[in-house]
Amino acid sequence: MVDLGAGVTLIPAATSITAGALTDLLILLVAAKAGEEIMKRLRQPGLIGEILGGLIVGPAVFDWIEPGEIIDVFAELGVVFLLFWVGLESRLSDMRQVGRVSTVVGAAGFVLPLAAGIGLGMAAGESIETSLFLGAALVATSVAITSAVLVEAGALGSRRARTILGAAIVDDILAMILLAIVTGVAAGGGVDVVAIVITVALALGFVAFFALGGTRVTARWPKILEAPRFSESPVLPAVIVCLALSVLAAEIGLALIIGAFLAGVIVAETKEHTAIESELAPINAFFAPFFFGSIGLVVTLDPFRDWGTVGFLLIVIVFAAATKFIGAWIGARSLGRRGAVFVGVGMVPRGEVGIIVAGIGRQAEVFDDRLFSVVIAMSVITTIATPPILRALISRGDPAEEA
Amino acid sequence: MVDLGAGVTLIPAATSITAGALTDLLILLVAAKAGEEIMKRLRQPGLIGEILGGLIVGPAVFDWIEPGEIIDVFAELGVVFLLFWVGLESRLSDMRQVGRVSTVVGAAGFVLPLAAGIGLGMAAGESIETSLFLGAALVATSVAITSAVLVEAGALGSRRARTILGAAIVDDILAMILLAIVTGVAAGGGVDVVAIVITVALALGFVAFFALGGTRVTARWPKILEAPRFSESPVLPAVIVCLALSVLAAEIGLALIIGAFLAGVIVAETKEHTAIESELAPINAFFAPFFFGSIGLVVTLDPFRDWGTVGFLLIVIVFAAATKFIGAWIGARSLGRRGAVFVGVGMVPRGEVGIIVAGIGRQAEVFDDRLFSVVIAMSVITTIATPPILRALISRGDPAEEA
Repeated sequence: MVDLGAGVTLIPAATSITAGALTDLLILLVAAKAGEEIMKRLRQPGLIGEILGGLIVGPAVFDWIEPGEIIDVFAELGVVFLLFWVGLESRLSDMRQVGRVSTVVGAAGFVLPLAAGIGLGMAAGESIETSLFLGAALVATSVAITSAVLVEAGALGSRRARTILGAAIVDDILAMILLAIVTGVAAGGGVDVVAIVITVALALGFVAFFALGGTRVTARWPKILEAPRFSESPVLPAVIVCLALSVLAAEIGLALIIGAFLAGVIVAETKEHTAIESELAPINAFFAPFFFGSIGLVVTLDPFRDWGTVGFLLIVIVFAAATKFIGAWIGARSLGRRGAVFVGVGMVPRGEVGIIVAGIGRQAEVFDDRLFSVVIAMSVITTIATPPILRALISRGDPAEEA
Repeated sequence: MVDLGAGVTLIPAATSITAGALTDLLILLVAAKAGEEIMKRLRQPGLIGEILGGLIVGPAVFDWIEPGEIIDVFAELGVVFLLFWVGLESRLSDMRQVGRVSTVVGAAGFVLPLAAGIGLGMAAGESIETSLFLGAALVATSVAITSAVLVEAGALGSRRARTILGAAIVDDILAMILLAIVTGVAAGGGVDVVAIVITVALALGFVAFFALGGTRVTARWPKILEAPRFSESPVLPAVIVCLALSVLAAEIGLALIIGAFLAGVIVAETKEHTAIESELAPINAFFAPFFFGSIGLVVTLDPFRDWGTVGFLLIVIVFAAATKFIGAWIGARSLGRRGAVFVGVGMVPRGEVGIIVAGIGRQAEVFDDRLFSVVIAMSVITTIATPPILRALISRGDPAEEA
């Protein structure tokens, strides 16, 4: 409804019911794309610009739009399609090669940040629940950010890149178990061992069933998504597989993107995977900015007017980055010096996962506004700082890889 | 959260906050696509299957999902991108050719259904407000449905097809003015002449400014969206133009899709329009099922257990179809016998526009549940019944067109 002043108000159009939501989406899309274009002209990864674009139109600066359920859904679809794409570029046989190293990287990159988070929390005088939650927030790696940098640089096929993808899956499963435990502790219900055992079994079963069984189906019937079978392009059946596995993953307690990635690995075995990739590209291009933009949208700057909070944030960032790097680096030593450094850096971004843990922590009332803002800022800053380093490492190449 | 019974509950995953919304979207997408595939195998227009798919998973049958804000946003984007596509296939010079005929078709196809709706309402003993609203509900043509049939049949380029598109714009502007009047009457505020004059001036100004000014800009700088200017494909800048004009149209009281159509007409003049079309196709394929599926989602069958209501519905359908056909046919006589019949049939579907008017009528408390359901059912049935007739007319060809 347009208020023209002096009491003259236009009548709302019949179809303008959802126009407000579309306006928010448009503002975020324009801000993210504008940021991307600027960053690319500065020879920086575009996704940093998309995050900053969201930050500028969000509550941190202009407050034109706020995070909400509709933007969350678009952001979620953005990261789901991104990981589906990454899965499409991954072959199960390639993933198997890196299985052992990935597991070690995931586990080592899990233990050290967890210890650091708990230690920092205790040292800051927080309760055991809050410290545990801080540990959980420091654990979670966002594979989406590193994946996006790898996709942009065309470096998804390398052994070190696949190691990161595999480690991120291990990392996510461990993080999920940890979150189950700390949520139980925070709720005062203690640790429900039965629930955790079932959660873990379901998660492992899900990954094994779809990674092995699913790819076997498509490897056996590679024409299952072929064009004449469906009246239009194969992209929609593929998108349906992607959404179905994502929702299923979420249903059993895993991250949506684990399902999306597995769906990609499965569809990659079909004959239509190149057609699907080229048709998925514009869908990806449309949704991805909402994911990156929405990361910037959750930032609030008010708590950082206090220098003590800024200091604490800096300490958290240093510990979060250093422990993740060292843990992953130890796990990836077998990839050679440069490979290990690459994997270590690639695991640092916390992205949306840290933000989500912060949100759960605030809901469970173990994080106050200050700690919530610190975890959000840590997630965003590790996310923004890592891509340029990663890009520099990619352009330097890797002698071990080339050998 | 998965409840395993016996008090064992899995802890919700960090990222499952929006998983419920994704599940609803997935169910609607699968139902709509399954319906489409079945209908295409029966050699019927796919969109009927998509509507029926939504009807089956919606409250009318299984009640697995309900209409809601998130599905509305996806449906709205579906129809916006559909009309953007239609605009991309339209040239302003072609539209100008049919301008006069379109205006007459739009106006004549407006007056008769309005009179029929008011008359039916009065005859059924309804109040003057309710009768006026019924007239408004019978007036609105859904250009989206006819456009989709024309796109599917590859018949968008013909003179009669363009006449329908142009008439739909005239129709929408008239419907908007009418809705402004009846909403004012229903609110008891009487008719605000100043607001209506401003509304009309803004609407005409918007259409004229973008149809003439916008296309002049792109015709003069056809490389404005060229690939090297933007680091990725030109589809996202084009989508941004589309969303911006849609939101702007809604803001001044027009339908979103008028803005989307004009954006398409403008972008059609750029050099990149074929690249944009091919990249827009998968985005369209993803969003369109939500639009058609959501039409089926609003149907409820309960009121039709009463035979009196069914009888009234049949009368409304006959009057809605006949008056629209006759009005549009009179306006289109200059296109020859077959052309006039084609335009008359093409204007019959009420689609989402009738549904939206019904919703406004219920909100304003001039429609009770029974009348609301009748208008919804009339919209859905005219929408489902028209495409097969339209397809048959397309395959028969038009001697006047070929001459």
